[in-house]
Amino acid sequence: MASVQVVTIGEAMIRLTPIDYQRLETTPLLEVHIGGAELNVAVALAQLGVPVAWVSKLPDNPLGRRIVQEAQRFGVDTSRVVWTQEGRVGLYFYEKGASPRPSVVVYDRRHSAVNTLKVDELDWDFIGQAKVLHLTGITPALSDFCRHLVAGCIFRAKERRMFVSFDVNYRSRLWTPEQARTTLLTLLKGVDLLICTKDDAATLFNLTADIETIARQLQTSLRIPNVAVTHGDKAVIVTPQGTFSQAGYQIEEVDRLGAGDAFAAGLIYGFLQGDWELGLRYGLAMAAIKHTIPGDWFIGTKAEVEGIMQAQQRGVVR
Amino acid sequence: MASVQVVTIGEAMIRLTPIDYQRLETTPLLEVHIGGAELNVAVALAQLGVPVAWVSKLPDNPLGRRIVQEAQRFGVDTSRVVWTQEGRVGLYFYEKGASPRPSVVVYDRRHSAVNTLKVDELDWDFIGQAKVLHLTGITPALSDFCRHLVAGCIFRAKERRMFVSFDVNYRSRLWTPEQARTTLLTLLKGVDLLICTKDDAATLFNLTADIETIARQLQTSLRIPNVAVTHGDKAVIVTPQGTFSQAGYQIEEVDRLGAGDAFAAGLIYGFLQGDWELGLRYGLAMAAIKHTIPGDWFIGTKAEVEGIMQAQQRGVVR
Amino acid sequence: MASVQVVTIGEAMIRLTPIDYQRLETTPLLEVHIGGAELNVAVALAQLGVPVAWVSKLPDNPLGRRIVQEAQRFGVDTSRVVWTQEGRVGLYFYEKGASPRPSVVVYDRRHSAVNTLKVDELDWDFIGQAKVLHLTGITPALSDFCRHLVAGCIFRAKERRMFVSFDVNYRSRLWTPEQARTTLLTLLKGVDLLICTKDDAATLFNLTADIETIARQLQTSLRIPNVAVTHGDKAVIVTPQGTFSQAGYQIEEVDRLGAGDAFAAGLIYGFLQGDWELGLRYGLAMAAIKHTIPGDWFIGTKAEVEGIMQAQQRGVVR
Amino acid sequence: MASVQVVTIGEAMIRLTPIDYQRLETTPLLEVHIGGAELNVAVALAQLGVPVAWVSKLPDNPLGRRIVQEAQRFGVDTSRVVWTQEGRVGLYFYEKGASPRPSVVVYDRRHSAVNTLKVDELDWDFIGQAKVLHLTGITPALSDFCRHLVAGCIFRAKERRMFVSFDVNYRSRLWTPEQARTTLLTLLKGVDLLICTKDDAATLFNLTADIETIARQLQTSLRIPNVAVTHGDKAVIVTPQGTFSQAGYQIEEVDRLGAGDAFAAGLIYGFLQGDWELGLRYGLAMAAIKHTIPGDWFIGTKAEVEGIMQAQQRGVVR
Amino acid sequence: MASVQVVTIGEAMIRLTPIDYQRLETTPLLEVHIGGAELNVAVALAQLGVPVAWVSKLPDNPLGRRIVQEAQRFGVDTSRVVWTQEGRVGLYFYEKGASPRPSVVVYDRRHSAVNTLKVDELDWDFIGQAKVLHLTGITPALSDFCRHLVAGCIFRAKERRMFVSFDVNYRSRLWTPEQARTTLLTLLKGVDLLICTKDDAATLFNLTADIETIARQLQTSLRIPNVAVTHGDKAVIVTPQGTFSQAGYQIEEVDRLGAGDAFAAGLIYGFLQGDWELGLRYGLAMAAIKHTIPGDWFIGTKAEVEGIMQAQQRGVVR
Amino acid sequence: MASVQVVTIGEAMIRLTPIDYQRLETTPLLEVHIGGAELNVAVALAQLGVPVAWVSKLPDNPLGRRIVQEAQRFGVDTSRVVWTQEGRVGLYFYEKGASPRPSVVVYDRRHSAVNTLKVDELDWDFIGQAKVLHLTGITPALSDFCRHLVAGCIFRAKERRMFVSFDVNYRSRLWTPEQARTTLLTLLKGVDLLICTKDDAATLFNLTADIETIARQLQTSLRIPNVAVTHGDKAVIVTPQGTFSQAGYQIEEVDRLGAGDAFAAGLIYGFLQGDWELGLRYGLAMAAIKHTIPGDWFIGTKAEVEGIMQAQQRGVVR
Repeated sequence: MASVQVVTIGEAMIRLTPIDYQRLETTPLLEVHIGGAELNVAVALAQLGVPVAWVSKLPDNPLGRRIVQEAQRFGVDTSRVVWTQEGRVGLYFYEKGASPRPSVVVYDRRHSAVNTLKVDELDWDFIGQAKVLHLTGITPALSDFCRHLVAGCIFRAKERRMFVSFDVNYRSRLWTPEQARTTLLTLLKGVDLLICTKDDAATLFNLTADIETIARQLQTSLRIPNVAVTHGDKAVIVTPQGTFSQAGYQIEEVDRLGAGDAFAAGLIYGFLQGDWELGLRYGLAMAAIKHTIPGDWFIGTKAEVEGIMQAQQRGVVR
Repeated sequence: MASVQVVTIGEAMIRLTPIDYQRLETTPLLEVHIGGAELNVAVALAQLGVPVAWVSKLPDNPLGRRIVQEAQRFGVDTSRVVWTQEGRVGLYFYEKGASPRPSVVVYDRRHSAVNTLKVDELDWDFIGQAKVLHLTGITPALSDFCRHLVAGCIFRAKERRMFVSFDVNYRSRLWTPEQARTTLLTLLKGVDLLICTKDDAATLFNLTADIETIARQLQTSLRIPNVAVTHGDKAVIVTPQGTFSQAGYQIEEVDRLGAGDAFAAGLIYGFLQGDWELGLRYGLAMAAIKHTIPGDWFIGTKAEVEGIMQAQQRGVVR
Repeated sequence: MASVQVVTIGEAMIRLTPIDYQRLETTPLLEVHIGGAELNVAVALAQLGVPVAWVSKLPDNPLGRRIVQEAQRFGVDTSRVVWTQEGRVGLYFYEKGASPRPSVVVYDRRHSAVNTLKVDELDWDFIGQAKVLHLTGITPALSDFCRHLVAGCIFRAKERRMFVSFDVNYRSRLWTPEQARTTLLTLLKGVDLLICTKDDAATLFNLTADIETIARQLQTSLRIPNVAVTHGDKAVIVTPQGTFSQAGYQIEEVDRLGAGDAFAAGLIYGFLQGDWELGLRYGLAMAAIKHTIPGDWFIGTKAEVEGIMQAQQRGVVR
Repeated sequence: MASVQVVTIGEAMIRLTPIDYQRLETTPLLEVHIGGAELNVAVALAQLGVPVAWVSKLPDNPLGRRIVQEAQRFGVDTSRVVWTQEGRVGLYFYEKGASPRPSVVVYDRRHSAVNTLKVDELDWDFIGQAKVLHLTGITPALSDFCRHLVAGCIFRAKERRMFVSFDVNYRSRLWTPEQARTTLLTLLKGVDLLICTKDDAATLFNLTADIETIARQLQTSLRIPNVAVTHGDKAVIVTPQGTFSQAGYQIEEVDRLGAGDAFAAGLIYGFLQGDWELGLRYGLAMAAIKHTIPGDWFIGTKAEVEGIMQAQQRGVVR
Repeated sequence: MASVQVVTIGEAMIRLTPIDYQRLETTPLLEVHIGGAELNVAVALAQLGVPVAWVSKLPDNPLGRRIVQEAQRFGVDTSRVVWTQEGRVGLYFYEKGASPRPSVVVYDRRHSAVNTLKVDELDWDFIGQAKVLHLTGITPALSDFCRHLVAGCIFRAKERRMFVSFDVNYRSRLWTPEQARTTLLTLLKGVDLLICTKDDAATLFNLTADIETIARQLQTSLRIPNVAVTHGDKAVIVTPQGTFSQAGYQIEEVDRLGAGDAFAAGLIYGFLQGDWELGLRYGLAMAAIKHTIPGDWFIGTKAEVEGIMQAQQRGVVR
Repeated sequence: MASVQVVTIGEAMIRLTPIDYQRLETTPLLEVHIGGAELNVAVALAQLGVPVAWVSKLPDNPLGRRIVQEAQRFGVDTSRVVWTQEGRVGLYFYEKGASPRPSVVVYDRRHSAVNTLKVDELDWDFIGQAKVLHLTGITPALSDFCRHLVAGCIFRAKERRMFVSFDVNYRSRLWTPEQARTTLLTLLKGVDLLICTKDDAATLFNLTADIETIARQLQTSLRIPNVAVTHGDKAVIVTPQGTFSQAGYQIEEVDRLGAGDAFAAGLIYGFLQGDWELGLRYGLAMAAIKHTIPGDWFIGTKAEVEGIMQAQQRGVVR
């Protein structure tokens, strides 16, 4: 198996969504998608042509196999997934709302197999050959076990001089702001790229300025060289190579889940190209495309992303 | 069987709707819902925890059973429905339009079983134990027979000192404004709460002022103590306890049918709580939620209604 | 408009069927088909290339238009349908069973527009140019009005020397055997071709022999020159040109409704070709094909019918 | 709330099934049903007109509400369900096979809320007013906690002189034959009606004779007065009132899950009527109907059951 | 076969569209529609009551039959379609986008049967009896063969003194602006009505003024008596009878394909009524309705079109 | 990229199938699958854990990408697919019949990109590292170009001492028996394993004995060391290591397409394990499973195949 450039580690779940705008109480059918922040990033990167692996732990049953197969479809390397006869596949139910009815997420992810994943079960020879390790703040929120997993992963990655990317992704259903802050302040030492929404910055770190200022404050206080902050369709990244910011797109929203992960993938793509500004532009375009596609995943080609970026394609081309 | 707090009486129909935005001429599939103003109100009230019964007359066939079963699903007491071997279940076809193509309703409700329902077939011992009887202006429009039914129901209810709520619900497909006015002017004597849209007030009673003025004019001219008037997302209610008004919500419309009935349910809920202002706020929030759900029915919990009211829930919570 | 060879007169309904094997009480979706014995025959004949018209009375609404459009799709001439602003489109709900649960038909066809169709509303100049008029025993069962319609049609047809074909099609949900017998004994005078199932012959005429004997008994007692009797996959026809009989096909049943009408179409096709034996073989093959198609209608080409007849096509050809 | 005649206690789950014959790895949609042996029995009894309650513990989320609402739809009393903010709703994935590919059940029911249900949380004043308590061998297989729950329920029921019905329902995915035997031998003391398949009798109790002999052996060895044993479409029951046996129906199988529970419901119905033979006949007819309906639930009326029993309804009636 | 008033000639294709907003790479199901500019016009005209034929060449297989049957459904005369045992039915895949993701059309129309259609295969006795021949700029873009076909059709039509209508419909996927300009400059001699979008006028003829000016410039330079130019919801037509212009409708877009063809049908309808202004108003209303219906076809009645035009129907009428 | 053990070369198409048993003329939706004999084999082998690549030529559009992505889903190596900007993706429409209506395949595969694939475009360094090259008799039937492709592939493979497997797969829609015989007699020199149905042996080689005799006759006359012949659920293989035969399974057929390819995959798996008998047993079990799954592809695990083989799994396990 050839080496990959990026590895992401985390949980992926089966996502179940009512058809139309039906409610979970009454829908006769549920659409099946796969979601999980780290896998979402891997799937998006794979479609840009980046060799990428996603690592996790899954039960050896049809649900576990489904997750791996769907990832393989887009070319994600899943050869290092750890299989187990124990545990379950995490699930979540996503009911899409319409204003003023909020969308509802019912998590059913406790006791999933990833909660038993140990750092030493991972193939660090394989992972260590990659340039980038991407993690998120969801994993440490899952359990004490998972918090140790993330800490261990960052440690191992730094030993191997990998570039560590970390998306805050605060989930209020999983832990409190206090718990999150305490844990993240420890974990984030060693991180090379931090991605954070303006809202999470306010909730966790009490930062409420404009996004560029917030990014600088996070850069300084956490001593992280590269920090990206997003707000709606805007994003900024402060780096040693300079500060880049851009506004996004007019979006007709079909499904917003996973848009942040598509953004992260674009940013990492830019890093791999040695061009943060390109990454920012890719990230915003990919997030915009993601908004228009049912499910958690960006589905598209590099040519489509660039087409959006150049605003050259409008309406129907025929 | 324990007593209930609210009884609604009227026809419920099977509603058949094309999938997507297809036309009735071409759709391969029809979605099945249940609709009927009085049952819609009962279903909404039941979900707020109010003991409520819906009374009607239905043929003993799978379509009749479906209506009762769907109502029972949400906890509506259907034990006093009168079953018959004659007649049919009313139907209506609802084709959802998109601007500028109007939505189309094809009624196929003539000769339905409810047209043979007599006041004396109803279990007035049961009904009379409730506090509130809710009726609408649709029933007297169905047939002469039904007009007598409604008159009889109001008479019996007043005998039993019930609070009578009445939603005008003018339907131009069923009768003319003249017919409606003549009938309603007689029926509305004895009503305790009148609900009317601004458009219906103009069509039937030639009232064209702002909604608060209209409500007062109706209160005075018809000698009804409590009058609510709605217009778009706004509503006002004039009562002996005071006048209350409120604007509604920014709504992303999925299906508008039944929104007025959700509003009526909220108002009645407020009355039962002894708080018209609360009722108005519940009504507007419930109508807003209804707009986001396919079918005629409000589906939700009291907690969700209050969440909307407090504007505390925005976007996806996860 | 050019003249046609066959005219059929009768009611067509919207048929609504649950998806899968779901029950009418619970199915979330209903499939939409069109059914009506006389229209079914016309649709099948049109696909064999026979110029054919179907005549009825329909309300001018989307449901009425749907029926006409679906018939036109297969080339049936609907130019003589009488349109009205009154009445409704007949409906029936068909729930497909599985052994031992019987299939259920809930008729909702009363008060449909066809019940107001008068003989004189029909364009007899147009109809009279055709060779064959096809009617069924369903129409006289609908109402007194319709019984007179059928009697009038047969009278007018005989005046114009048309060949009158009549399919007994006894429906126990519409009338009793006694009512049917009395009516049919009168109507069938003047009929040139009678089609009857073995079961209907037993129920209505108390004939219980083998199908060939039954056919001869009907031929003699009713003085009808051509009589076809069917039983399961077998059929016989006795005619002045001789007696022909044939066994049918091994059938994997998808939807049995309309198979008898496909048989009648085949028989009439044979008559038009001057070959009753050919008609019998076409009829059985078309009935077999119909059993494999969802909905009431035979859908196929003459080449397919002949392919089945020659047993030349087996399995997948690729 | 009025008293009920039958109470069933156990877990109900959301069942998720691929459309068509698709595999869990690839299906784009999952059908949503509710399943759980004890609730299945309650739903079937309610449709026969028997006042029946189902008791369990559920999390207060849309999935928990869905289970209760679907049960209420058919008239099951769910007023004594215990609601919790903890735990999850059990799920199972059911992939329908086709010979020789076996159907697959993937259970995801661990850590469900019912595992924290204590005997003392139940409303024994309510339950004790019923005549019959129905339990199954699935519940004690779920956890030690649940085993104690079942033991406690039987004890409380006997204190209240309830008739205890128990369906063995051995599930090899939940425990071994040894575990099941040990537990059941203790629990079954106190049971008044035992229902067991021939296969389970062989697996758990090493009994391999004809079903009547097996029933007698179980009756004697376990000192249970009434024992029913089923095998395929046949069933026998030995009781102090006599031994009754019957063969079942030719079945076109649509969905076999829940057929045993429909049988149990019929048997209990017979007991309530004081007629075990009637119960046996109802049970077999209801199991046959269940086989023809997607999902775990018998859906039908007493009239339909009796129609099947009298073999009076065949094919399509129209 | 009676004569028709309008004949359109061109290719029709099977259109395949993912459900929801899914991508072609992942959708489990494709919706089936029929599309082709000239057939789209015929289908719309037929629904206005205009006798109209569509002529083309199709392979005699189920896909070819489907196109003809769907057209017949709406009353289009297809009796002059040329059938062949060679060639294929053209297809196109249409993936609906959402901003900023553009809609995608994947044409798969090469080698379709229409590419072998010769002028002499057409029944000019039939065609020549019509008043109007409608063609588009798509056909000459398909192949050299088709360019000759169009040239020949215009020549034959002019011989027969038909009124020739021509919609530019530039398709960048089929040819370059240069190729289109060269071909069209030749073909358009002899055309009586030209329809062109503002964008096509810019791309092909370098005209960039307001739409009325563009129309006049086209009228003058191409010597075409009647020229209509559209832009978004606005349209203008310059004719010897005068210049007419109108703005369109606020549109909630469901499916934009075919809207231009609905406009063309309205314009031709106006011409047949001898009233260009009426035609313009019909065209804009029909285009607006088309935008609200899935598929390429206008589906509606003249009454609906006029209802829209009179703005008398708003929202739900019930 | 690591080396693979098996390479298959050939065309894969988008397969479009009506829902239910609907006809191509009327189905509103088409299911999307991928089919192509050589890819079908690769997909099945990949699921057994065999490293396998499929090589072909595809246009770089969403349809081409879909084929590759679906293959990757199951782990097939598609890195050597040749991409082009020209040509189209082959399609076929598969309408499932029901007795006596035959299933219909409408091929629309002409002019597909694979028809321009040249031997030298393939990466023979990559292919040559594999043990087995699998080809079928479909490819040479596509065009002269493709016939040369196959000849060239066999030549290159033999140069590299690969084991060449060849499945006859005669397609009467693509060529005549004479054409096929002439071509195959040349191509089959150099083949190491021939797979042929009894029917194809009769059609092409005039061999009509029992399958073992046919296999020996083919072995002798064509000088192919290993020959497998199948008939219905039976199969035999004659090899230098001995002759093995086996009967298959009772099958409930859901979709028969691709079953032969699943058999071929099992046989090749056995070869790789050095055990032809095992291969035969795998092949029959995999073909049986394939029959139960919609689409052309075997979907399952080695454990499932072995479970079927050991007849240890029956009915529902839960």
